[in-house]
Amino acid sequence: MSLLENLEWRYAAKAYDSTKKVSRENIFKIIEAARMAPTSSGLQPFRIILVEDQSLKEQMVKGALNPEVMRDCSHVLVFAAWDRYTTARIDTVYNRITDDRELPRGRFSSYTNQLKDIYINQEAEENFAHTARQSYIGLGLALAQAAELRIDSTPAEGFDNTVVDEVLGLSEHGLRSVTLLYIGYADKGRDWLAPMKKVRVPLDEFVIEHK
Amino acid sequence: MSLLENLEWRYAAKAYDSTKKVSRENIFKIIEAARMAPTSSGLQPFRIILVEDQSLKEQMVKGALNPEVMRDCSHVLVFAAWDRYTTARIDTVYNRITDDRELPRGRFSSYTNQLKDIYINQEAEENFAHTARQSYIGLGLALAQAAELRIDSTPAEGFDNTVVDEVLGLSEHGLRSVTLLYIGYADKGRDWLAPMKKVRVPLDEFVIEHK
Repeated sequence: MSLLENLEWRYAAKAYDSTKKVSRENIFKIIEAARMAPTSSGLQPFRIILVEDQSLKEQMVKGALNPEVMRDCSHVLVFAAWDRYTTARIDTVYNRITDDRELPRGRFSSYTNQLKDIYINQEAEENFAHTARQSYIGLGLALAQAAELRIDSTPAEGFDNTVVDEVLGLSEHGLRSVTLLYIGYADKGRDWLAPMKKVRVPLDEFVIEHK
Repeated sequence: MSLLENLEWRYAAKAYDSTKKVSRENIFKIIEAARMAPTSSGLQPFRIILVEDQSLKEQMVKGALNPEVMRDCSHVLVFAAWDRYTTARIDTVYNRITDDRELPRGRFSSYTNQLKDIYINQEAEENFAHTARQSYIGLGLALAQAAELRIDSTPAEGFDNTVVDEVLGLSEHGLRSVTLLYIGYADKGRDWLAPMKKVRVPLDEFVIEHK
């Protein structure tokens, strides 16, 4: 199926069948789509925390807008972004790039020095605004991958970031939670959104064209 | 081809063949993928400005990190997000949703009132931080769609937002530019990145798993 057919198929599921688990193979295909996402300067400044453990889900549910979705879904993917850029993080990425391409380390140092000049002089909050944005590219590709596999998903911002960060110990990883992606198989009988028509802004309002 | 195969195929092209144009049909498939992107509360708080006109591209190029890419690509998609949320914007979206689903207007008013309470009380800059994030979901899906069509693309943040906003008159639309997506056919002979291996953070560093 084409991407557009998959995007037409998907919707943000509002109720999950807690008895149905997504296979490990498919979970990792979904994660792989996010891992392949392009990001600014190739820095990939976000990570995915994969949560299947029910007691952890119960701890994260405090402050979540859709507690039943958290409880009943098969897996929660927590998209978490770097709390800030550091010289070490930038060097790690570019050393990997040069090593993997069999280029001398430092091959891109004039570029990475520019990046460091910009990012290291910013406040952490400004860094995080940038890293968090990148994670949405991965979020979009992950939910497209779920749709290709005909696995339901629900992207969600409606949760208490401080609770999730603490439950998952994200600060130790230098991460802060940004979005959740609930994954599983919808319980269509309980899902009010399932039978509803998908509504989008009309194309002629979405595009401003300069030929 | 699968999404993962398409993501493996794509890369951020660094040189385009200016003689090759992307068909109108394919440009609008790419835009359609962004239009179908899920967004927070379904508000779709971003638009795409489609630029083919060479003189407009010349005006936007000031401050762009890759002027040759801007000049030589077939089309530029400018992803631009709402400068702020307003009651009218939220009502327009939810009136469309209820109308399209043949539900009474106001069916979701308790929800939209919550959204208004949150967003209208925020500063414009805080609104924009949120709307801009949503546009990255569309950016990711648009470049995946380009890849499915074997059309090259280059997502880019490296440009002068104030220049682009002014050249395109975005403030009149209540929009601010966020990212560019250059679209076209790469000139592989001039593109230093084309033969390079794609490098990503290893899976075991990308995922933190809680079983």
